[in-house]
Amino acid sequence: MDYPRLLAAAERAARATTGQGRVADYIPALASADPESFGMAVATVDGRLYGVGDWERPFSVQSISKLFTLALALAHGGDGLWQGVGREPSGNPFNSLVQLETEHGIPRNPFINAGALVVTDRLLSLTGDAAGAVRDFLRQESGNPLLDTDAEVAASEAAHGHRNAALAHFIASHDNLHNPVEAVLEHYYAHCAIATSCRDLVLAGSFLARHGARADGSRLMSRSEAKRINSVLLTCGTYDAAGDFAYRVGLPGKSGVGGGILAIIPGRAAVCAWGPRLDRAGNSVAAVTALDTLTTLSGCSVF
Amino acid sequence: MDYPRLLAAAERAARATTGQGRVADYIPALASADPESFGMAVATVDGRLYGVGDWERPFSVQSISKLFTLALALAHGGDGLWQGVGREPSGNPFNSLVQLETEHGIPRNPFINAGALVVTDRLLSLTGDAAGAVRDFLRQESGNPLLDTDAEVAASEAAHGHRNAALAHFIASHDNLHNPVEAVLEHYYAHCAIATSCRDLVLAGSFLARHGARADGSRLMSRSEAKRINSVLLTCGTYDAAGDFAYRVGLPGKSGVGGGILAIIPGRAAVCAWGPRLDRAGNSVAAVTALDTLTTLSGCSVF
Amino acid sequence: MDYPRLLAAAERAARATTGQGRVADYIPALASADPESFGMAVATVDGRLYGVGDWERPFSVQSISKLFTLALALAHGGDGLWQGVGREPSGNPFNSLVQLETEHGIPRNPFINAGALVVTDRLLSLTGDAAGAVRDFLRQESGNPLLDTDAEVAASEAAHGHRNAALAHFIASHDNLHNPVEAVLEHYYAHCAIATSCRDLVLAGSFLARHGARADGSRLMSRSEAKRINSVLLTCGTYDAAGDFAYRVGLPGKSGVGGGILAIIPGRAAVCAWGPRLDRAGNSVAAVTALDTLTTLSGCSVF
Amino acid sequence: MDYPRLLAAAERAARATTGQGRVADYIPALASADPESFGMAVATVDGRLYGVGDWERPFSVQSISKLFTLALALAHGGDGLWQGVGREPSGNPFNSLVQLETEHGIPRNPFINAGALVVTDRLLSLTGDAAGAVRDFLRQESGNPLLDTDAEVAASEAAHGHRNAALAHFIASHDNLHNPVEAVLEHYYAHCAIATSCRDLVLAGSFLARHGARADGSRLMSRSEAKRINSVLLTCGTYDAAGDFAYRVGLPGKSGVGGGILAIIPGRAAVCAWGPRLDRAGNSVAAVTALDTLTTLSGCSVF
Repeated sequence: MDYPRLLAAAERAARATTGQGRVADYIPALASADPESFGMAVATVDGRLYGVGDWERPFSVQSISKLFTLALALAHGGDGLWQGVGREPSGNPFNSLVQLETEHGIPRNPFINAGALVVTDRLLSLTGDAAGAVRDFLRQESGNPLLDTDAEVAASEAAHGHRNAALAHFIASHDNLHNPVEAVLEHYYAHCAIATSCRDLVLAGSFLARHGARADGSRLMSRSEAKRINSVLLTCGTYDAAGDFAYRVGLPGKSGVGGGILAIIPGRAAVCAWGPRLDRAGNSVAAVTALDTLTTLSGCSVF
Repeated sequence: MDYPRLLAAAERAARATTGQGRVADYIPALASADPESFGMAVATVDGRLYGVGDWERPFSVQSISKLFTLALALAHGGDGLWQGVGREPSGNPFNSLVQLETEHGIPRNPFINAGALVVTDRLLSLTGDAAGAVRDFLRQESGNPLLDTDAEVAASEAAHGHRNAALAHFIASHDNLHNPVEAVLEHYYAHCAIATSCRDLVLAGSFLARHGARADGSRLMSRSEAKRINSVLLTCGTYDAAGDFAYRVGLPGKSGVGGGILAIIPGRAAVCAWGPRLDRAGNSVAAVTALDTLTTLSGCSVF
Repeated sequence: MDYPRLLAAAERAARATTGQGRVADYIPALASADPESFGMAVATVDGRLYGVGDWERPFSVQSISKLFTLALALAHGGDGLWQGVGREPSGNPFNSLVQLETEHGIPRNPFINAGALVVTDRLLSLTGDAAGAVRDFLRQESGNPLLDTDAEVAASEAAHGHRNAALAHFIASHDNLHNPVEAVLEHYYAHCAIATSCRDLVLAGSFLARHGARADGSRLMSRSEAKRINSVLLTCGTYDAAGDFAYRVGLPGKSGVGGGILAIIPGRAAVCAWGPRLDRAGNSVAAVTALDTLTTLSGCSVF
Repeated sequence: MDYPRLLAAAERAARATTGQGRVADYIPALASADPESFGMAVATVDGRLYGVGDWERPFSVQSISKLFTLALALAHGGDGLWQGVGREPSGNPFNSLVQLETEHGIPRNPFINAGALVVTDRLLSLTGDAAGAVRDFLRQESGNPLLDTDAEVAASEAAHGHRNAALAHFIASHDNLHNPVEAVLEHYYAHCAIATSCRDLVLAGSFLARHGARADGSRLMSRSEAKRINSVLLTCGTYDAAGDFAYRVGLPGKSGVGGGILAIIPGRAAVCAWGPRLDRAGNSVAAVTALDTLTTLSGCSVF
């Protein structure tokens, strides 16, 4: 595929969305992002790297970190994880608490906040340092030793974190956390507040395009496991718009309210697009448009 | 791919599930199915056809017909369909009525019963005979002129149809049906009660593997449209176990309580497996096992 | 108590609500009511009758008929009724369907539509003519032989009745109706469409003030049963505003979207107020105000 | 009324329930209660005091304290309280979180845990010491200077309090708490863990039977306000069995999982019954039976 041409076309389409959507403003640290920033990068399985726009500029990884906590928890702890968290789409935001209630504190999937708290809890038990494990993995795969948690963002999340605290206590009331609520929340905020770029993320996510193999050739997980993570990404990775994202883009992907979306073209490449303005489901308007353009022009969706 | 070998392996795995799951018994006509029946067929895009076991024996198509009503409604009426029905996973069965209520009578997706009623309604407006349109399409693609609605099954569905009647009236109370409730229900029961076989279904579903082209080479829909139907199948096609099906099998597919599952390997083949015993989500135990075996051995999942 | 003075004060307060609330308009027959009509009547247990304003003008009884279907079903059939319908408040409108779903087709109480359908069904089994039984009871107690169902209103309800049909089919799907859905709906619409006046209703409702004794001195039900109906009226009689009505008025009462509210002062009197403009919960603004004034001035609330 | 005779009959009926229900065991401190304890007391508005069985033996007041936090918050702060908490019945336990979600963090009523947390928060703002205000009020009205929080119970509640912590954080996420979550929870546990007896509670609750007047003749609140608290007790005071309690007993009342129920006969008396075994709704089997017997024999229900 002619990635430079595809990235140029995707950027043009993304830039044409100027003015659509709103920058996340529930914490001041995110609200200050430049709404018209845009970057996009591709890393192919054979080692090529492409980028356009602000592709090397750091932004807040936010929920994209949930992809890495899931991968690391499965890699270190195996399938037992699925006893504490499901892998079904969650329907809509309204239902999340109902589901947690009716399903006895087992979150629907690892990518809603409730589920990510459980995964963080397990990774904390497995490694002793959940946020550190994510950070170290991102550093190693991207080769960027400066990549780190933005302490200001993490503090801001914690200060506005009553809802996540409610979820964590609720899960704990169902005996589905192994560590203290406070520790789980601290690691959760720390890995969501990592500052990273499209460049870093395509390199760090490439293990899913390479069917489980890391940058250094070692194996993080089996081919089957990598495929299965891709399936969870496709059905659950973009909040309550997973069906729409699959319909429009047709790739496994994980979005974050920092405006990034990391998507996988299995067997070929990892792609990341970033733009801070979000649609009502919390996905970046520019990034969805860019990825839609890329798959439409290249025909590279999984379907 | 060596389909004969794959089918043989899949059949062995499926037969080993003897005794697991329960035959649907909410209507007598389904309860009488032989629980140990098993059949499986593959139709490749280059015209080869393979089968094992009871692959030519008719069973009740049930919800698999929803795939065809969706395809025909989109082919005849276009994207306007999505104004009356969504394309997001529905979460779980419990939520269906809540969601219909909170989302103003717009069903979550075309494959839950509520959504299929809306699609049937639109297809009825577009063709004047929704059930006939589905039946004729299945006959033409399969080359089986005897394929038809089983009148006894349709009558039995209607006689036990209070829940579907409740859904239809509820949707009508939100002005989201264009035809009388009674007519919509009649066509709905008629297309769900079509008797068909694995052989017929792989031939009829092949247009999705051929990116929209029919058996005679004419185009039912564009390449993009066919891909998009595949994405809806993957995220919503197997009731409330769509996430699990994607995780285990990794193919777009549609199941029915008659015990069949029709799955698509985009660009390559359509596959159908059948066994009457159902798991708690309503999917055939034998068919899921057979498809899981096929994708695991062949590596042909979309991920 | 000086009822003439109390009624005069209540009328003044009610008339001062001009312009607040909206006349029910979901069917044309109700929408044509004069919004500024107001009437109020009191019938004491010792046989006195008082009225002000339009107290002898007929209006559509609507849900107030549910009080009489409940009383007659209990009088004819006894406590077995409570196996098919609960007596707990329903929370809020949003939840009604969820509750019906999670509680296996047993409606929360006899005064939500779902519950009234079950009570109508039982009364139909007990009497062969549920709507006729209600009409005859109202005629006998009020001494008004002309009191009858308004056929136009009943037809209009049926024509706009998709939501009630949905509820009835849903209950039937849980095997909680003994008669055909169509028959239950017909009787339900017929008793809700009875045209009656404040005068008729206070006479017909007096049996609850007289602890179960009818106008002719015969006993409809025991003292305990009458008290228990009053308790259900107080906790469930005014839709989702039962708590607020108890807080403001402090009497057992049943409201209807025709604008009437029939309330009971146990051991003393029945009171009915009517005004077509409704608040958001579906209760008459003028009638609530009038009853609030009456209990505040007289101190006659049950608390 | 012949209270000694009524209490003797009530005790007989209560003791006959031996073996029914289960002692609350979610915290060890409650689980150790003697299941066959039973006490009952009456305090009349003219100053007489009666008791049977273990009527002077302390038990954990638990949710009965919510009656006093409500009364004190209204007495000190007035009607503004109702902006942060509703006064409608909550339907069923399942719905509590859904309702909190759909109703933007405004709990349905002051007697579900979520609502009591809001009331505790307001009382904390009004007095600087919410638990102390409740304790002091109970001491003054009962004349029992030793009445106090059981520190062991309070600590045990806190240690098992993930669910209440979840509710508090959730309410805080909707900006409906004015004090820190930790402070609100501490005061909530402290007032729920007060050890008190039937004797103390009938004396402390008599202000509601006396229409707002305290033991020393001073006025805690107006006649109207006292009546309104009684109405909230009747519609919301016994968890999700408020309708059933009104149906069987017909008095305003508040229950606690310590096994006590405090009920009001407006204008006449306060009654408290206690027995540790609870039914599925969390109300004392013995206490409900005793109160049912008392109102049935005396005809003193409000209906």
